[in-house]
Amino acid sequence: MAVRVNGLPCKNPSWVQANDFHFSGMHIPGNTSNAVGSSVTPAFVFQIPGLNTLGISLARLDFAPWGVIPPHTHPRATEILTVLEGKIEVGFVTSNPQNRHISKVLNKGDVFVFPVNLVHYQRNVGNTYAVAIVALSSQNPGVNLIGNAVFGSNPDISIDILAKAFQVSEDVISDIKLKF
Amino acid sequence: MAVRVNGLPCKNPSWVQANDFHFSGMHIPGNTSNAVGSSVTPAFVFQIPGLNTLGISLARLDFAPWGVIPPHTHPRATEILTVLEGKIEVGFVTSNPQNRHISKVLNKGDVFVFPVNLVHYQRNVGNTYAVAIVALSSQNPGVNLIGNAVFGSNPDISIDILAKAFQVSEDVISDIKLKF
Amino acid sequence: MAVRVNGLPCKNPSWVQANDFHFSGMHIPGNTSNAVGSSVTPAFVFQIPGLNTLGISLARLDFAPWGVIPPHTHPRATEILTVLEGKIEVGFVTSNPQNRHISKVLNKGDVFVFPVNLVHYQRNVGNTYAVAIVALSSQNPGVNLIGNAVFGSNPDISIDILAKAFQVSEDVISDIKLKF
Amino acid sequence: MAVRVNGLPCKNPSWVQANDFHFSGMHIPGNTSNAVGSSVTPAFVFQIPGLNTLGISLARLDFAPWGVIPPHTHPRATEILTVLEGKIEVGFVTSNPQNRHISKVLNKGDVFVFPVNLVHYQRNVGNTYAVAIVALSSQNPGVNLIGNAVFGSNPDISIDILAKAFQVSEDVISDIKLKF
Amino acid sequence: MAVRVNGLPCKNPSWVQANDFHFSGMHIPGNTSNAVGSSVTPAFVFQIPGLNTLGISLARLDFAPWGVIPPHTHPRATEILTVLEGKIEVGFVTSNPQNRHISKVLNKGDVFVFPVNLVHYQRNVGNTYAVAIVALSSQNPGVNLIGNAVFGSNPDISIDILAKAFQVSEDVISDIKLKF
Amino acid sequence: MAVRVNGLPCKNPSWVQANDFHFSGMHIPGNTSNAVGSSVTPAFVFQIPGLNTLGISLARLDFAPWGVIPPHTHPRATEILTVLEGKIEVGFVTSNPQNRHISKVLNKGDVFVFPVNLVHYQRNVGNTYAVAIVALSSQNPGVNLIGNAVFGSNPDISIDILAKAFQVSEDVISDIKLKF
Repeated sequence: MAVRVNGLPCKNPSWVQANDFHFSGMHIPGNTSNAVGSSVTPAFVFQIPGLNTLGISLARLDFAPWGVIPPHTHPRATEILTVLEGKIEVGFVTSNPQNRHISKVLNKGDVFVFPVNLVHYQRNVGNTYAVAIVALSSQNPGVNLIGNAVFGSNPDISIDILAKAFQVSEDVISDIKLKF
Repeated sequence: MAVRVNGLPCKNPSWVQANDFHFSGMHIPGNTSNAVGSSVTPAFVFQIPGLNTLGISLARLDFAPWGVIPPHTHPRATEILTVLEGKIEVGFVTSNPQNRHISKVLNKGDVFVFPVNLVHYQRNVGNTYAVAIVALSSQNPGVNLIGNAVFGSNPDISIDILAKAFQVSEDVISDIKLKF
Repeated sequence: MAVRVNGLPCKNPSWVQANDFHFSGMHIPGNTSNAVGSSVTPAFVFQIPGLNTLGISLARLDFAPWGVIPPHTHPRATEILTVLEGKIEVGFVTSNPQNRHISKVLNKGDVFVFPVNLVHYQRNVGNTYAVAIVALSSQNPGVNLIGNAVFGSNPDISIDILAKAFQVSEDVISDIKLKF
Repeated sequence: MAVRVNGLPCKNPSWVQANDFHFSGMHIPGNTSNAVGSSVTPAFVFQIPGLNTLGISLARLDFAPWGVIPPHTHPRATEILTVLEGKIEVGFVTSNPQNRHISKVLNKGDVFVFPVNLVHYQRNVGNTYAVAIVALSSQNPGVNLIGNAVFGSNPDISIDILAKAFQVSEDVISDIKLKF
Repeated sequence: MAVRVNGLPCKNPSWVQANDFHFSGMHIPGNTSNAVGSSVTPAFVFQIPGLNTLGISLARLDFAPWGVIPPHTHPRATEILTVLEGKIEVGFVTSNPQNRHISKVLNKGDVFVFPVNLVHYQRNVGNTYAVAIVALSSQNPGVNLIGNAVFGSNPDISIDILAKAFQVSEDVISDIKLKF
Repeated sequence: MAVRVNGLPCKNPSWVQANDFHFSGMHIPGNTSNAVGSSVTPAFVFQIPGLNTLGISLARLDFAPWGVIPPHTHPRATEILTVLEGKIEVGFVTSNPQNRHISKVLNKGDVFVFPVNLVHYQRNVGNTYAVAIVALSSQNPGVNLIGNAVFGSNPDISIDILAKAFQVSEDVISDIKLKF
């Protein structure tokens, strides 16, 4: 029977080796042939066991032309992004009541920050592929994709709750739900 | 020129009095005559200055018949709710990829927990008014109302980003945006 | 053989259900037929397993007429209280050397804060039953009842230490100890 | 007008010098000519400004023959003690409901630990002077002397609350209060 | 007179703009014409004010052929590195008593982790320029260059202390000191 | 098969006794007959199991005449030292780029602080034995001895990396390595 702790158990220190701290793959383009046109290649604690307790991780983001990473939050991490190729529009929204949308179009070599727990997105605003590297301040940042959480949960949130929440008809809600 | 620190500055300890730790109002029904049919009466650090650094706060929730508090997250706090009157349906959604919707209908005296940073909502499922008390694990929990953050930010997030994100037509997105 | 960690182990996420986040009982009066005339009904992590790691809990406090919750501290939590019924006198004492006693009489709907680790108490100052809800900033706040810790420990603290500490005769100390 | 932050502001790093990290006095016997027969010489952040943010401090404890440091808690720190001279009886009490009294008589060179926020005391159990060095896990540990907090606050806690709390007559309470 | 807090004060939220979260420069090669043949281009809180309180930062590392970043520690951050170009040998050393040297030669797309506070280094093991991006788990990670701290402090650490510490003659110590 | 957690597992609370919080040995001189002329007698969590989770520990330092504790850091703790006997020169070095060497000669009763993660050392500057007590803000502070980490790791760091780092010939590096 497994004993589960919050986080992950530790390897015997005597057996630890360099490969526990190593990952290979940030140079490999991800597969962006999907509905949103983007891909995330994680280097989290699940890929690099030596990250356990160390409070940081990386990922590679790939974008097909005009591909997006849809609005989402990271419950446990701030994200910092740098563009390797292409032109990426990014933004985040501050809390209620201001809901200020802070955004910028980034070019190669630019860096942008997405504060922890704020809704944010990225979009490739060019006709070429775009690539970015992101770092996150957690070994396992988590992600809440807003669309999936609200319209695609298992089981569904009641259509009437969402109709009232978004102040639209139940048909509109049903249409959106079909996509998730 | 104001000096701003992360959080709030401290009062001179010699001037501190009982009223800095006191608030009156949890017995007063909030005004639920609005589109969503709900109201929040906060007892946060802004209402109780003595809460500064102490990591907790309260609020009173009022619901008109079938009123909702629409899907939202608290970036800095877990929420725990207890029903004083009425019958309230509550739920939260876990992170990607599971997006499990965990929900329950609560009666008077029931308690439910909404883990920090997960999307959650409450809805009055009766024809009477409903009232709950919530506690949050922060002096200033923050709230991201999903609808407002995604569809009602200032300025707007581009319609085409949202259309791609929710996989619907731009007209649907425009309709929703009009409400915010 | 049990493996004990600081806190509690985690349930398999696949087996988690709504009832792990649910508790029923805040509407049930506690039994105040005891020497101090009060009762505490906890909704801590032991009652709500889903509170594990989430940093908050609730409890219901009942007071018979003139009943008290005697002076105590919570080693791990700040407490915030709201009165549901009755009239409750509350107070806490600041650290040495000031030992300021900050107190107030609360009515229905009032809120008061007891900073973590300061000695505090509550007393019903009416001839009716009083009820309050408290939230605490820990899943397992802990409680040190001052009387029990000092005069009723197992085994006893030496009578002469306490006589010197409180500057009274050993007979007085013995009398108090008999009560615990 | 002073700006107060939680903790202490920082000195200009360019002006920092060795004396900000230095204190002299752990070799000087404290004055134990008082009712309890003990003395504390602190080396906290107020004596060593360079301790700001660094999470630790020291103090020297002196005991006259049979002198005591009466029951108290440190709201912000664990304490670890080592005996330099003499024979010191020490103990702490665990939380409710166990209230276990864990104690030991220490000789020169012994070390004992008092977990944060638990009631503890020390007493010289010899006819000579005793000396100890303690370290605390905070730059400003704080102290709640149980006697002073409960019986000697400013203003007083009502006699009838304390009579009920300790289950003794109000006269006994009044007697104890006279000492504080 | 400046008020200094631990960290940095906050900007008025109403004045915050996208450029506070933006930096441009990760695409610009640093100047590696120095004794060690390396360069660091930081994107810390001093370059990106919006990073204040957010617990992460980036930097670009450039290496001339066979250039090194000499042994150092980051007092406040774990470092995670990914190679953009070239071939970089990296390593860190675990604490006493094991002092295990864990190292690897990295190629483009590889990732490696340097746990907080452990001595580590990087070296370009090719005849071309090498480039890496690093993320650190602090807005202001700090760096202790071992050579500078031990042999190049202001003022010097006594030659005889170092001779004893490294078990070499004072002449050897003097020679090394001349370089710093 | 052992389950390893970050830190140490907990003992069954019912079996805990006074000796879990006790250590004897701070009065026993350590053996300083070694190359550096110093000795450390720890009272960490491994000697005092009850220190688990409590954030502090002690140690006794012994110095032969002119003995040193060579330059080192504690990855997880600030250190505070008090001199019991003798005359001890102490110092630490601040981070890059200032690398300020802050030092003082201490006499009996003096206290000095070594901020977490900064390189520091102590040296007996008298012809008698010297003794100090140190407290550290962690149950298991860790130590990185600079000489061992850089010149005596297992396996070695390449001589050419170190030659470049310290800007000396490879022969000098080889000589130093022979000592570790």
